[in-house]
Amino acid sequence: MIPPRLKYTQKGLWILDQRLIPWSIKKIKAETYVQAAAAIKDMVLRGAPLIGCAAAYAYALAFKEKFFSSKSQIRNYFLKVEKTINSSRPTAVALFASSNRMKKILESFLSDHKEKIGPLDCLNLYKEILKEALKIEKEDIDSTLAMAENGIKLLKKNSRVITYCNTGALATMGIGTALGVITKGYEKGKISFAYSCETRPYLQGTRLTIWELQRNKIPSALITDNMAAHIMKTEKIDAVIIGADRIAANGDTANKIGSYQLAIAAKYHNIPFYVVAPCATFDLSLKNGDGIKIEERSESEVTNIRGLRLAPKSIRVRHPAFDVTPNSLISAIVTEKGIINPVNTKNVLQALSI
Amino acid sequence: MIPPRLKYTQKGLWILDQRLIPWSIKKIKAETYVQAAAAIKDMVLRGAPLIGCAAAYAYALAFKEKFFSSKSQIRNYFLKVEKTINSSRPTAVALFASSNRMKKILESFLSDHKEKIGPLDCLNLYKEILKEALKIEKEDIDSTLAMAENGIKLLKKNSRVITYCNTGALATMGIGTALGVITKGYEKGKISFAYSCETRPYLQGTRLTIWELQRNKIPSALITDNMAAHIMKTEKIDAVIIGADRIAANGDTANKIGSYQLAIAAKYHNIPFYVVAPCATFDLSLKNGDGIKIEERSESEVTNIRGLRLAPKSIRVRHPAFDVTPNSLISAIVTEKGIINPVNTKNVLQALSI
Repeated sequence: MIPPRLKYTQKGLWILDQRLIPWSIKKIKAETYVQAAAAIKDMVLRGAPLIGCAAAYAYALAFKEKFFSSKSQIRNYFLKVEKTINSSRPTAVALFASSNRMKKILESFLSDHKEKIGPLDCLNLYKEILKEALKIEKEDIDSTLAMAENGIKLLKKNSRVITYCNTGALATMGIGTALGVITKGYEKGKISFAYSCETRPYLQGTRLTIWELQRNKIPSALITDNMAAHIMKTEKIDAVIIGADRIAANGDTANKIGSYQLAIAAKYHNIPFYVVAPCATFDLSLKNGDGIKIEERSESEVTNIRGLRLAPKSIRVRHPAFDVTPNSLISAIVTEKGIINPVNTKNVLQALSI
Repeated sequence: MIPPRLKYTQKGLWILDQRLIPWSIKKIKAETYVQAAAAIKDMVLRGAPLIGCAAAYAYALAFKEKFFSSKSQIRNYFLKVEKTINSSRPTAVALFASSNRMKKILESFLSDHKEKIGPLDCLNLYKEILKEALKIEKEDIDSTLAMAENGIKLLKKNSRVITYCNTGALATMGIGTALGVITKGYEKGKISFAYSCETRPYLQGTRLTIWELQRNKIPSALITDNMAAHIMKTEKIDAVIIGADRIAANGDTANKIGSYQLAIAAKYHNIPFYVVAPCATFDLSLKNGDGIKIEERSESEVTNIRGLRLAPKSIRVRHPAFDVTPNSLISAIVTEKGIINPVNTKNVLQALSI
């Protein structure tokens, strides 16, 4: 079993510190929204859906035992809180989605009240916000289960698969996206073996995914990213299953750097390549993947491992954090609503409108 | 400039300790053939051609100031030395090639002498062996220069290339194989930029190749292996240039794990994929790559970096040290004798017989 990633209690929000996994399992407690935002920023937790849930609970922390005497006071305070939360991980779409839902709660509350506010009103606002946060969590859990149920339909019995980065329970409040399909698939006899690519430079596969597979007792092995093609050639591999950071209207998928290379290797070996992600991952403002800006992250993540410098000094280093896999390399996209296959604009729009 | 990898002196064989690069530049001294064999075994030096040279000098150390009174004494001693040297890196073809050449020197000496041997005869034998070792080194230097001259014929002006593992001066006594082409190409205006893939798990690209590129002042950048396809897609890349560990008669090429995946990515982007290796790398006893046994190396090289454990305990890990790139993905093979293109059995046999 994977320990709870977030737990909201009367004393604060307990957060599993994922930076310490697999070396130790420790929680930290955020008692204020500022502390929760700092935890998001400092990568105590990661994974788009989980960031969305943590952001929602950060609003609950912000409004807990917080009393105002006027609507304008509340409005100003909300704006301050929102700014802090939204700037904690500016590229995470799920974070903004949670903020927008909380804004709706606030607006509904404001329209129901006169300018002067009493303590009981404030308590009710907090209750509404906490209710919404719990709802966001529940939706995340249900969505991962639905994705898993949909995803395993694509797999034949005893499939052997390759996965990438971490898309498991650690990235969500549920069983995960791509790794959720593998977990559920193993339960149902659809998966017999999973390879976890180490996922350089941040090693999410080495630290998190293989750890989840091990804890869930799923037969598995760790490989370096550059072994994937050799494994596809020399072993029976039935599918590659990965997550997504952002998906354009035509299905072009931005995901952790290395996903594109893996997709090319899968195509060369005629192995299906599946993307598993909630509908919230689609960005329909992007016609295709060309519009996706690729963030260039810190060089030291490539040259150093856990503080240890591996490369010579004063060299040039590239670190694009993501890459874009074109829809032509993607066999199907699995969402909580169903399966998109073949992957093209028409099918994406149809799938999202259901 | 790259410091000398080997230097044979009256006091012994000085060996650049490549395990310490890029952190420090230190030499160790082997005074006996046993010490030289241990240095090969312990990876103080690496790279097939360089191992061949080191093995040759190990014979010189073995016969230096060594006196025998009969041919049978010499024969027995040679067998003991040969056993120690050949077992230092049993997969290195170049090592056996050097041993075989020294055996021929010995046989010629034995056939020229009667059973009883004097000290002057022993001194002459040592001289012959040392002469052969110097010849092997000279041939290696000349061969890398010839490969570089041949290789740059394939490149257009200001090419931007990707290379893999370390195939440079550090792997030879000359300027290197694949990296030799890049070094010479830069001199001649044929190369304007080189990407070095880090080459997991042993990180030869991070530790050695980018260091050589930097010391030779060649504009370059380090990338993780999984970035190669993204770089091919988003930048102008004119060629991928790699070395080889063993090449079958049809041109199928065994090289460091990850080469195959890189070749697939190059093919997908219509980028030429060149293999640069001396003729000694061909193993004509192998019809194609199917017969090449892939060594599975230590799991800890994947799970640990410089002694630091990165992965959870008790997981399964795969570590195939090499993979095989089929000739269909190789645009040309460059040897010291010329260019093989297209890569097929007929052209390989013809090229080697020149």
